[in-house]
Amino acid sequence: MRRITILGATGSVGRSTIALLEAAPEGAFAVAALTAHRDVAALAALARRFRPDLTVVADAAEGMALREALAGTGLRSGAGEAALLEAASLPTDWTMAAIVGAAGLRPTLAALAQGKTVALANKEALVSAGEVMLAAARASGARLLPVDSEHNAIFQAMQGHPADAVEKIILTASGGPCRLMTDEQLAAVTPAQAVRHPVWSMGAKISVDSATMMNKGLEVIEAARLFGLDSDRIEVLVHPQSAVHGLVQFSDGSILAQLGAPDMRTPIAHCLAWPDRMAAAVPRLDLAALARLEFFTPDTKRFPALHLAREALRVGAGAPTILNAANEVAVAAFLAGRLGFLGIAELVERILDRMGTPPVVDLDAVLALDTQARRLATAALPAAQPLAAV
Amino acid sequence: MRRITILGATGSVGRSTIALLEAAPEGAFAVAALTAHRDVAALAALARRFRPDLTVVADAAEGMALREALAGTGLRSGAGEAALLEAASLPTDWTMAAIVGAAGLRPTLAALAQGKTVALANKEALVSAGEVMLAAARASGARLLPVDSEHNAIFQAMQGHPADAVEKIILTASGGPCRLMTDEQLAAVTPAQAVRHPVWSMGAKISVDSATMMNKGLEVIEAARLFGLDSDRIEVLVHPQSAVHGLVQFSDGSILAQLGAPDMRTPIAHCLAWPDRMAAAVPRLDLAALARLEFFTPDTKRFPALHLAREALRVGAGAPTILNAANEVAVAAFLAGRLGFLGIAELVERILDRMGTPPVVDLDAVLALDTQARRLATAALPAAQPLAAV
Repeated sequence: MRRITILGATGSVGRSTIALLEAAPEGAFAVAALTAHRDVAALAALARRFRPDLTVVADAAEGMALREALAGTGLRSGAGEAALLEAASLPTDWTMAAIVGAAGLRPTLAALAQGKTVALANKEALVSAGEVMLAAARASGARLLPVDSEHNAIFQAMQGHPADAVEKIILTASGGPCRLMTDEQLAAVTPAQAVRHPVWSMGAKISVDSATMMNKGLEVIEAARLFGLDSDRIEVLVHPQSAVHGLVQFSDGSILAQLGAPDMRTPIAHCLAWPDRMAAAVPRLDLAALARLEFFTPDTKRFPALHLAREALRVGAGAPTILNAANEVAVAAFLAGRLGFLGIAELVERILDRMGTPPVVDLDAVLALDTQARRLATAALPAAQPLAAV
Repeated sequence: MRRITILGATGSVGRSTIALLEAAPEGAFAVAALTAHRDVAALAALARRFRPDLTVVADAAEGMALREALAGTGLRSGAGEAALLEAASLPTDWTMAAIVGAAGLRPTLAALAQGKTVALANKEALVSAGEVMLAAARASGARLLPVDSEHNAIFQAMQGHPADAVEKIILTASGGPCRLMTDEQLAAVTPAQAVRHPVWSMGAKISVDSATMMNKGLEVIEAARLFGLDSDRIEVLVHPQSAVHGLVQFSDGSILAQLGAPDMRTPIAHCLAWPDRMAAAVPRLDLAALARLEFFTPDTKRFPALHLAREALRVGAGAPTILNAANEVAVAAFLAGRLGFLGIAELVERILDRMGTPPVVDLDAVLALDTQARRLATAALPAAQPLAAV
């Protein structure tokens, strides 16, 4: 029996993880702790179903509601940041770190400190606080499993093969909804167009990141951290069908790739059972039905975000933290109609140029830099009225 | 240092293996034995270069020529079948079993008896004598590594992943030069058309097998032996670009695939270094340059050979031996202008129907059945004059 904790149990990745647990054979998993941001009703239902040792709602204001929802169950609950860190520190074999954004950093660090297996779905952990997280994993001996479909694909394709024989890795990108647009069309992209992702069903922020290709830039940074590779050994290929999620090229010319239907339950199932594999009732990829897989070199001139991310990775130190923070502000402003589509990368570049490469020695330094970058990016936004073009 | 033997050193696979040895770091490999069919000049040159403990020419009539060619080198040589078996039995860590056809069966069996690693390039070993070979490997504890690009791909994709989680495997087929032909065009295919393979540069026999898709049928049988899978868990997909060589689908929905340029040195290098990987100066696959990979369900109505092979695998016993022998006779007759293209599968089916499923308890029984099937197939050929359609 594997004892597991889910940090962020009611979000998209958390719910997919729960769906797999529900379909798993009785007794395969026991749940140590469950946490959620503020959806008390959903969290309490999960707690009644899986009876964890600790159930935590991160929003302290919801603590009373959670206690009431669990009244009579004998289940222990908590609320607020301290309780969240207690949940992440509760002895467990396996943790799903799926709290979105900067809020996920401290709990992820607490989970890593246990020295067990951490399935990482929080992107900020490796982009914004990459060196801090890797140092924590090294110190405790924790094993990081990537949940993101591209990195999970690379991890699977490397598994069982000598790491020192890896020549390069290839992350695939759908190319997003703006892939075929002219420069003029790109300048006029609306939020509604940008969130219309052709393959994956995702939140607005990540859909916009996919449209700008910043998403792939952040993934290049994540891959560099996870697999210890320089930017020039991490290639990106546009692959509109999103069937091949990642590829690894070895020194003898062999390429190993992972493919699958665009369903997050497949990489999550891989992490849940690793190094074994579990049965998962997810759709199977039907190559004959797809018929055609295409691969293109990305156009970093029309999509400069990918180049910006590589540059932040190259200069290192706090640059990835700044990139990530400035991008979040820029995307929020774009979604609010305060910034044009091409303005997103422009703003990120301006903030990167202005802030340089301050050192990030620990998580406090990361969070301070993140706050500072957000402040500067917000101040650099155009006045708060809709742009003419939107 | 890995001690290796190459059975069939001057053939296509043998020469590719030699090319990799020549490019390997000094001292990585030592050569125990080298054998060739009858190309004494090439064999002697290899022996002078690699100084094996034993050099053997299989054709007994060439023994004197080999001795003369090695005069003054101090190298031991031999000729004929007994010497060939001695070479295969000489203590070694790794054997390349690359003698083509039925002549390769006894030496391969002798290599397997050593209980070490045998890289298997001889197709007949697993098709015609599959159960005998597997029993020998089990008895000695020998490890079989598949050299054939499709099976090597499957082997690589399974490596490091739990075998009991394999749901199915997919062998890719180029579809051959007749893939898009109408029934009328198929009936009129000439030998010259059939050997014009679109991707791989191969011998006439295997090119015709690729055109009829019997090649893929034989590979389904090989895969069933190598990976212990039933026919219904071995899928075939037509993939004209031959970039993806094989795929493995696991119980969690993940598919792992091996890709590479169509160059036999890549799977051979994988076998040579296994479980490590070596550097090989083979062309790298360029997905962006290829741009498009296609996948189609094979048409077993127009290409009945694939169905015949699955049927022979299903009924088992001697049926695969008969299939292989009858097919060799039919292809030779087609190449000689004595049989039409569609006549190949028809002849094989007729011989399979006539001979049933005789048991094959050992290699002698396999060879006797092989001889009998060839005799019956030859007798069933049309009279020795060119067909009108050719």
